[in-house]
Amino acid sequence: MRVSTLGTFPLQKPHLPEESSKTVTKQPLPEMVSSLRLLTLTSLFSPSFTRRTTVSLRRRLHLRPPLAAGFSVQSAASSPPETEDRLDHKKSSRAQDPANTDRVITPRSQDFNAWYLDVIANAELADYGPVRGTMVIRPYGYAIWEAIQDYLNVKFKETGHSNMYFPQFIPYSFIEKEASHVEGFSPELALVTIGGGKELEEKLVVRPTSETIVNHMFTQWIHSYRDLPLLINQWANVTRWEMRTKPFVRTLEFLWQEGHTAHATPEEAEKEALQMIDVYTEFAYEQAAIPVIAGRKSKVETFAGADKTYTIEAMMGDRKALQAGTSHNLGQNFSRAFGTQVMDTLALSESKSKIRKFTDENGQRQHVWQTSWAISTRFVGGIIMTHGDDSGLMLPPRIAPIQVVIVPIWKKADEKTGVLNAASSVAGTLKTAGLKVKLDDADQRTPGWKFNFWEMKGVPLRIEIGPRDVSSGSVVISRRDVPGKQGKVFGISMEPSILEAYVKDRLDEIQSSLLQRAISFRDSNIVDVSSYEELKEVISLGKWARGPWSASDADELRVKEETGATIRCFPFEQPQGTKTCLMTGNSAKEVAIFAKSY
Amino acid sequence: MRVSTLGTFPLQKPHLPEESSKTVTKQPLPEMVSSLRLLTLTSLFSPSFTRRTTVSLRRRLHLRPPLAAGFSVQSAASSPPETEDRLDHKKSSRAQDPANTDRVITPRSQDFNAWYLDVIANAELADYGPVRGTMVIRPYGYAIWEAIQDYLNVKFKETGHSNMYFPQFIPYSFIEKEASHVEGFSPELALVTIGGGKELEEKLVVRPTSETIVNHMFTQWIHSYRDLPLLINQWANVTRWEMRTKPFVRTLEFLWQEGHTAHATPEEAEKEALQMIDVYTEFAYEQAAIPVIAGRKSKVETFAGADKTYTIEAMMGDRKALQAGTSHNLGQNFSRAFGTQVMDTLALSESKSKIRKFTDENGQRQHVWQTSWAISTRFVGGIIMTHGDDSGLMLPPRIAPIQVVIVPIWKKADEKTGVLNAASSVAGTLKTAGLKVKLDDADQRTPGWKFNFWEMKGVPLRIEIGPRDVSSGSVVISRRDVPGKQGKVFGISMEPSILEAYVKDRLDEIQSSLLQRAISFRDSNIVDVSSYEELKEVISLGKWARGPWSASDADELRVKEETGATIRCFPFEQPQGTKTCLMTGNSAKEVAIFAKSY
Repeated sequence: MRVSTLGTFPLQKPHLPEESSKTVTKQPLPEMVSSLRLLTLTSLFSPSFTRRTTVSLRRRLHLRPPLAAGFSVQSAASSPPETEDRLDHKKSSRAQDPANTDRVITPRSQDFNAWYLDVIANAELADYGPVRGTMVIRPYGYAIWEAIQDYLNVKFKETGHSNMYFPQFIPYSFIEKEASHVEGFSPELALVTIGGGKELEEKLVVRPTSETIVNHMFTQWIHSYRDLPLLINQWANVTRWEMRTKPFVRTLEFLWQEGHTAHATPEEAEKEALQMIDVYTEFAYEQAAIPVIAGRKSKVETFAGADKTYTIEAMMGDRKALQAGTSHNLGQNFSRAFGTQVMDTLALSESKSKIRKFTDENGQRQHVWQTSWAISTRFVGGIIMTHGDDSGLMLPPRIAPIQVVIVPIWKKADEKTGVLNAASSVAGTLKTAGLKVKLDDADQRTPGWKFNFWEMKGVPLRIEIGPRDVSSGSVVISRRDVPGKQGKVFGISMEPSILEAYVKDRLDEIQSSLLQRAISFRDSNIVDVSSYEELKEVISLGKWARGPWSASDADELRVKEETGATIRCFPFEQPQGTKTCLMTGNSAKEVAIFAKSY
Repeated sequence: MRVSTLGTFPLQKPHLPEESSKTVTKQPLPEMVSSLRLLTLTSLFSPSFTRRTTVSLRRRLHLRPPLAAGFSVQSAASSPPETEDRLDHKKSSRAQDPANTDRVITPRSQDFNAWYLDVIANAELADYGPVRGTMVIRPYGYAIWEAIQDYLNVKFKETGHSNMYFPQFIPYSFIEKEASHVEGFSPELALVTIGGGKELEEKLVVRPTSETIVNHMFTQWIHSYRDLPLLINQWANVTRWEMRTKPFVRTLEFLWQEGHTAHATPEEAEKEALQMIDVYTEFAYEQAAIPVIAGRKSKVETFAGADKTYTIEAMMGDRKALQAGTSHNLGQNFSRAFGTQVMDTLALSESKSKIRKFTDENGQRQHVWQTSWAISTRFVGGIIMTHGDDSGLMLPPRIAPIQVVIVPIWKKADEKTGVLNAASSVAGTLKTAGLKVKLDDADQRTPGWKFNFWEMKGVPLRIEIGPRDVSSGSVVISRRDVPGKQGKVFGISMEPSILEAYVKDRLDEIQSSLLQRAISFRDSNIVDVSSYEELKEVISLGKWARGPWSASDADELRVKEETGATIRCFPFEQPQGTKTCLMTGNSAKEVAIFAKSY
């Protein structure tokens, strides 16, 4: 039996240096932190604070944000065994050089990874946990995950799935049973060996994925074809002892949903696997504005344990591919390993009219046909890396925790009440209309500071209300996705029905504009190739190569070896016409997409 | 520093026999199971099946339900070290005696614990996981938990809390740091000692509760009073190596929410702790129809790590108390242990108008004041044990996964279409009205079987539609909480507006009736006592004793020793008048409630 590798995190098993077992990062001496922070905080809360200009405020405020400090702290204390965990970039280029500390976010074009980490820190999406490779998902980041959950949870139920919960501790023997033919899964496992103060007789695996325990239970619940299809899902945490970690994209523990289904026929299982990759695809396009390419994995890239793996592949801002969700047709691999079978001799087929013989040719009871499918908190990383820009995060309205931020502006004390009343009334109007609205009426920050802050947090629309707006009964509205004056419209009426319609239209426009922009970016970075030379050229430019492929697994591995690119998928959407394999010159049925990936 | 024991699961640390480290239960030989099941299934699907009478069908169908088998299997293979895990009851009284196997659910009055396990098995709420003490929460049970989540999640957000997620692996040193003065927490921990194929330098604790890691992070996020209050919550799994396990009530891994807050003043923390126990109380009364008694724990029963613990105590059907939710005022215990402090010298008080000096008398920076509060899947056990009866589960409409089940009834083939159309139309009407409706149109079961099945699943209302009802345009409606003819009303019009109003009224009535019934039961089982002799008498009758108490901790422990009862709480609602301590005869400020508990 083959090992389960369901999910979005590729299993990589590098040989580890000795440091890898060091799990807890050292914290700096409390006195040191205090003095550093005291300096900053004293500046922030000094009486002269509110007189500073917006620009210098912004520089000042971000001098040493707590989160960036948190990241630097860990990067200083931990020894990342692999280069992808590049947190020491910050240490070397900024944190240790006071002159460099006042730029908020590394420009995306300058260093994509540093930009990514800066955005996560400054937008307060996540922070490092005390154990190497773990992540604390902060409220703003978690709210994005909740938006993902809310949408998918409804879709899963609409398509007949029920939520449930399986224990996270799995007897080691289950994994062995299933993984006996797969080398090196164990390097990824976290094992509980002590429970209740005693050494356990059998080690327990902390769930890296649940096919084994799911099948153990399915075997007890499924007896008749009437028990099928069995369609379940769970929202859970999973643990994989990853060495090259990166917030959201690859962490030691992450959150996901894992769907598990059992069916009476291979056709039903195939239909289910395709249905769920479609659900993911629709989610990516419609909600996250990420124009993923859906397709089938090559045999080499198919997860062990699956007969077929379907995937959605997203192009990040640095043009690397992110596997953003997968759906596996598991065939009978797990049902055979765990004896999950139906004992009826006759069964109704899915059409409910045709009797189907429910034994195989040898009169054996039939093992069920299964699927599994998952999307994880990695998707949040995909959203950041698809839409963000030099100013920070940019969130599609449909998954933004805050869709509209309202910034009241006043100078004189006698203006304040009128402005705040109007702002509050506008906030009320939009909340009643079902929008997610934040009124930032804090006294301590200037409007300029607030503009930058909420831009950095990726809020799609900003409404400004000053004394003159109050007089004219109108507001100023700025789009996050159109910088500067182009994105700013004056004189929108505060009249509730007009304002509501205007704001909703703009949010729809932004949603659609982010998707269109991402489609253009994606399409301008996928190049059709007809030879291996062309493929190498395209990959070396950082782009995706698409070309006919019918070569061997060995050829596929050679491409990976020589270019760093892998087959991301054979896309469902295939060009017409005859095709000639770019590698062998033989005829090919399909084009494949090659790219470097996360 | 004291250990955190936040939550609803009392920490018990019995000395364990050697068997306790045996974590995986043996499964019976596959052939044996198959043959047993084959017998049953053959009966079920034999051609004569549909001709049986309802009663004999019911007996037959429940002969050996897979779940009961699952439970028995484990009880046969595992050796529960304590008597509370009484699954072997089933083995001795039923599973091994074929003559006894045809009663579905042990009568509640005969054996409350066996009844509880039978209900869980037959209503498919949960099943055992392969690791001792773990539980698989099945869709129907999980849907109850989702109803709890949906309600509380909204309340938490309304009261200003944000969801987030902390890693479940906690460095062992964190626990040690915090637990140094508490003996014996470590017997409850599950420890990860191997990660990525290597022995870890430092053991990792699988989260039993999160105060330590929360404070580690709070210390990095809180610098100024402006960062306060910090109000967060997480929905998560937690692990406690419990020896005496019982599905939902006490399991090795369970699901919960844990709120954690930090405040600038002790008054704010106290207000928060009280606010959250109020949220729990309102949930228990209004949604779960459980008339909990809210109050303060005695010093002995206060969780170590807390200055004060507030609790909601529910009376189960066997009159044992269930601690169903707790809210702790943690004072500065954790903030001192982890150095979570504010560095401002001046701060605005909560009224935002009064300047408050933000240092203590010695000029030290102020540690924050904290709370934590939790409700877990244990609450599902509380719902079962409050409302269930001999027929099975009985669910309050507001948390029932299915509020109305529709059973179409026909005999002749030519009646079928009309009946099914009407049933489907009624289902549509009620779904449109926002109700949770199940149309049970399965061909394979008789109406009588369905009646019993959905009663056992606790569905509040059943609608029956037969050919005559179709002709008259009406339906028959039966209440789960009023057995037999009394609960059955004929001739309710199918006209949507009439039917919707009728059904909604009945559901409201049932909700209210379940609560009233539970209040009566509770109040008739709480007895006021004025002496220790009276207390002992009341406890020995299995009731709750309420009496004035101002005696010592030693006296309280003596009561526990001699009667098995503990102080459940000093209820918020106190009787008027002067009070004399039942134990010492000294004057007392408050009455306490004593009871045996889960």
